[in-house]
Amino acid sequence: MAISADILQKVQAELTALLGDRCSTSQAVRDQHGKDESWHETCAPDIVCFAQSTEEVAKIVKVCAAHKVPVVPFGAGTSLEGHINAVEGGVSIDLNQMNEILEVHPEDLDCVVQPGVRRKQLNEYLRDTGLFFPIDPGADASVGGMASTRASGTNAVRYGTMRDNILNLTVVLPNGDIIKTGGRAKKSAAGYDLTRLYIGAEGTLGIITEVTLRLYGIPEAIAAATVSFPDIESAVNAVILTIQSGIPIARIELLDEVQIDAINKYSGLDLPVQASLFLEFHGSDAYVKEQSEFVGDICAEFGAEDFKWTTKPEDRAKLWQARHDAAYAAKALWTDASLWATDVCVPISRLADCIMETKADLETSTLIAPLVGHVGDGNFHLAFVLDMSNPDEMAEAERINARLIERALSMGGTCTGEHGVGLGKKKYLPKELGDGAVQVMATLKKALDPDNIMNPGKII
Amino acid sequence: MAISADILQKVQAELTALLGDRCSTSQAVRDQHGKDESWHETCAPDIVCFAQSTEEVAKIVKVCAAHKVPVVPFGAGTSLEGHINAVEGGVSIDLNQMNEILEVHPEDLDCVVQPGVRRKQLNEYLRDTGLFFPIDPGADASVGGMASTRASGTNAVRYGTMRDNILNLTVVLPNGDIIKTGGRAKKSAAGYDLTRLYIGAEGTLGIITEVTLRLYGIPEAIAAATVSFPDIESAVNAVILTIQSGIPIARIELLDEVQIDAINKYSGLDLPVQASLFLEFHGSDAYVKEQSEFVGDICAEFGAEDFKWTTKPEDRAKLWQARHDAAYAAKALWTDASLWATDVCVPISRLADCIMETKADLETSTLIAPLVGHVGDGNFHLAFVLDMSNPDEMAEAERINARLIERALSMGGTCTGEHGVGLGKKKYLPKELGDGAVQVMATLKKALDPDNIMNPGKII
Repeated sequence: MAISADILQKVQAELTALLGDRCSTSQAVRDQHGKDESWHETCAPDIVCFAQSTEEVAKIVKVCAAHKVPVVPFGAGTSLEGHINAVEGGVSIDLNQMNEILEVHPEDLDCVVQPGVRRKQLNEYLRDTGLFFPIDPGADASVGGMASTRASGTNAVRYGTMRDNILNLTVVLPNGDIIKTGGRAKKSAAGYDLTRLYIGAEGTLGIITEVTLRLYGIPEAIAAATVSFPDIESAVNAVILTIQSGIPIARIELLDEVQIDAINKYSGLDLPVQASLFLEFHGSDAYVKEQSEFVGDICAEFGAEDFKWTTKPEDRAKLWQARHDAAYAAKALWTDASLWATDVCVPISRLADCIMETKADLETSTLIAPLVGHVGDGNFHLAFVLDMSNPDEMAEAERINARLIERALSMGGTCTGEHGVGLGKKKYLPKELGDGAVQVMATLKKALDPDNIMNPGKII
Repeated sequence: MAISADILQKVQAELTALLGDRCSTSQAVRDQHGKDESWHETCAPDIVCFAQSTEEVAKIVKVCAAHKVPVVPFGAGTSLEGHINAVEGGVSIDLNQMNEILEVHPEDLDCVVQPGVRRKQLNEYLRDTGLFFPIDPGADASVGGMASTRASGTNAVRYGTMRDNILNLTVVLPNGDIIKTGGRAKKSAAGYDLTRLYIGAEGTLGIITEVTLRLYGIPEAIAAATVSFPDIESAVNAVILTIQSGIPIARIELLDEVQIDAINKYSGLDLPVQASLFLEFHGSDAYVKEQSEFVGDICAEFGAEDFKWTTKPEDRAKLWQARHDAAYAAKALWTDASLWATDVCVPISRLADCIMETKADLETSTLIAPLVGHVGDGNFHLAFVLDMSNPDEMAEAERINARLIERALSMGGTCTGEHGVGLGKKKYLPKELGDGAVQVMATLKKALDPDNIMNPGKII
């Protein structure tokens, strides 16, 4: 339902009084805030506000709450299920000017940042402290967005996801009140876990305006390698055995032959065009050696070639940049191609089955979709390379995606390991958790946001 | 407000029809279900039900919901803040007959258990699989209770708390509906984190009737040691440096000289009566050696004596049993003594300050209170040894406890690291998180349990 022109005019006037030219209704600005990196169609907000403080976010939300106008938080715009698309219009709050690192406590291995801080910015800032923040979803996402989508990525197999690495949040509630959800103690049993309630809530229960993150010491030794396998099943089985053996590997990423071909071209690598793993080990010199020998033996058992070590830090950076650019590499396979990215996650014992059945599905399909994954967690992605204006191709992506999700759910898995629900996975949520659990989510949403102004249309 | 005799009679009749002699109103049974191991006074439920399945729990809850009668879940009864005390009467649901280990998936490192399963039972059951469940709050608690109180304990410094080690819960809602909150995938971004909402909810939002737990391989090498320090500050500083160095130590427990004296007497040890650390290292042989040498060097820097290694598994078991019996040892210091146990958790950099100020407080007090702690997490306990019928002693415990909590909060810590809120920490929750956050908790409670039948009077 469109918002009436009368109400929009009032909201715009109040927000302009508050923010001056940091309140915009320019079509270009609105369009830019109406679409993330997903396949979902652009839904431009009516107004875009550029906030500079928690208090300002609270004031903006109060204006919107008074007029029952939707509020959509906006970070880096790198989400993958239409999370920031303003499907009911309203006000997009751009948090990119809230990009300060407020506190670093090296002695407690934590820091406090504003939501617009990007993960690369944070790690560059931290470098001199000898600390780093491990969560790494590939894109140079904002910390607020990563928290809101429960992001994970390549390092999650060792360091956990955003869920595990946030101690405290400052949140602006749907009525404009400001709360904090925790403290700086490493653990707490003090009441309901509001921190975890807001992590992954995708902006539907409030807006995260400050995040206390756990940090880690940069390991004494870091070693990265690539290794090629005769077929994808062997690669996956090597991963499964590595995980089952309890090796605390820092990264273990699968790329199928389609993806390797794409990144060779896009990132100037010359890897064998075969299913491959990208690996990284963290620890002391001796411990890294021990881990990598162990995993090397496992890979050899499954017919892998020798590890190709990337010894120089700049080569390592290039390797992981290539991995992070996997989606862009896939997109570059065809001129004017678009991507439809999806992800699932299954118990590790079912990973080979899930991947093999998915590859078989793709073989019978007209679509190309490179397969990459954070396979140590049982999590993998397909990126359909397609022409979004072609309804047949879109329908085929929808079909393969639906089959992928059914498959993952039938194996005890989830319809999304890390991308989140947004718009694209809504219909799968009841299939995964049952109507009862989704009803509980709806009850929580209704209780905390009775007028449904916070990022409406997402998750539920 | 007491429940009317008329309503109780109807509820009892319906529950007896359902459960036969597994519905009891015997005074002895009611009293036994009216008190945990805390200092809070006994509040007996009116009726005790012994449930044998999720469906039976659901039926009991439906009866209670229909009559708006309180429901209190009961596990091992080892909680420490009056969690299971039926402050408004009603029906206690004893879950101890639901103590089956339903599924073990060694290949996925997880298992599914009923809530009455005890942690020792689980680890005995798992032994032949080479796996173990690390969370260890000391008492032989039930898994359902551990989940409901967000328990942690000695191994949490390495393996995390219950929050980090549960993949899925089956929950009976306040209306008797049954939901599941997750699946068996290692991670998921599918909607609100209902799993974490119920972990630590202390039975106030529903009853946990099934738990999917993460498991770990029993390490190739386990080495445990004790080490004595010239004073407690040196011991704490050694802990802080160990944690800041990122050593993945599996256990690092502080016991002050009062506690060491108590466990020497109770558990037949002969440790020097000085502030001491109990340590444990997990990993490969080489890695355990590397870690223990590193920590040994740190301890030596702070004037510690040499590590006393407990090499035999039975000696190691004896050592940790002594640690787990710390509370009973404290209680045994005086005939007829009772314990008032409390806990706080602070950022690790403030741990020495917090402990030294607390020890100074105790020196000016008439009460004795051994200090022990899971100090790697910044978490420690006081156990006031007192005569609960003496109002002066109770008032003095209240005073010292209040000062301890104020101190922890002023340092960015929490009023409870692992015991939970229950009855005893309710008044501190707004001081810790602010009225706004507590109001959000109250909103959630009201939305999910509008008649306030689930363990009323706890947390909020």
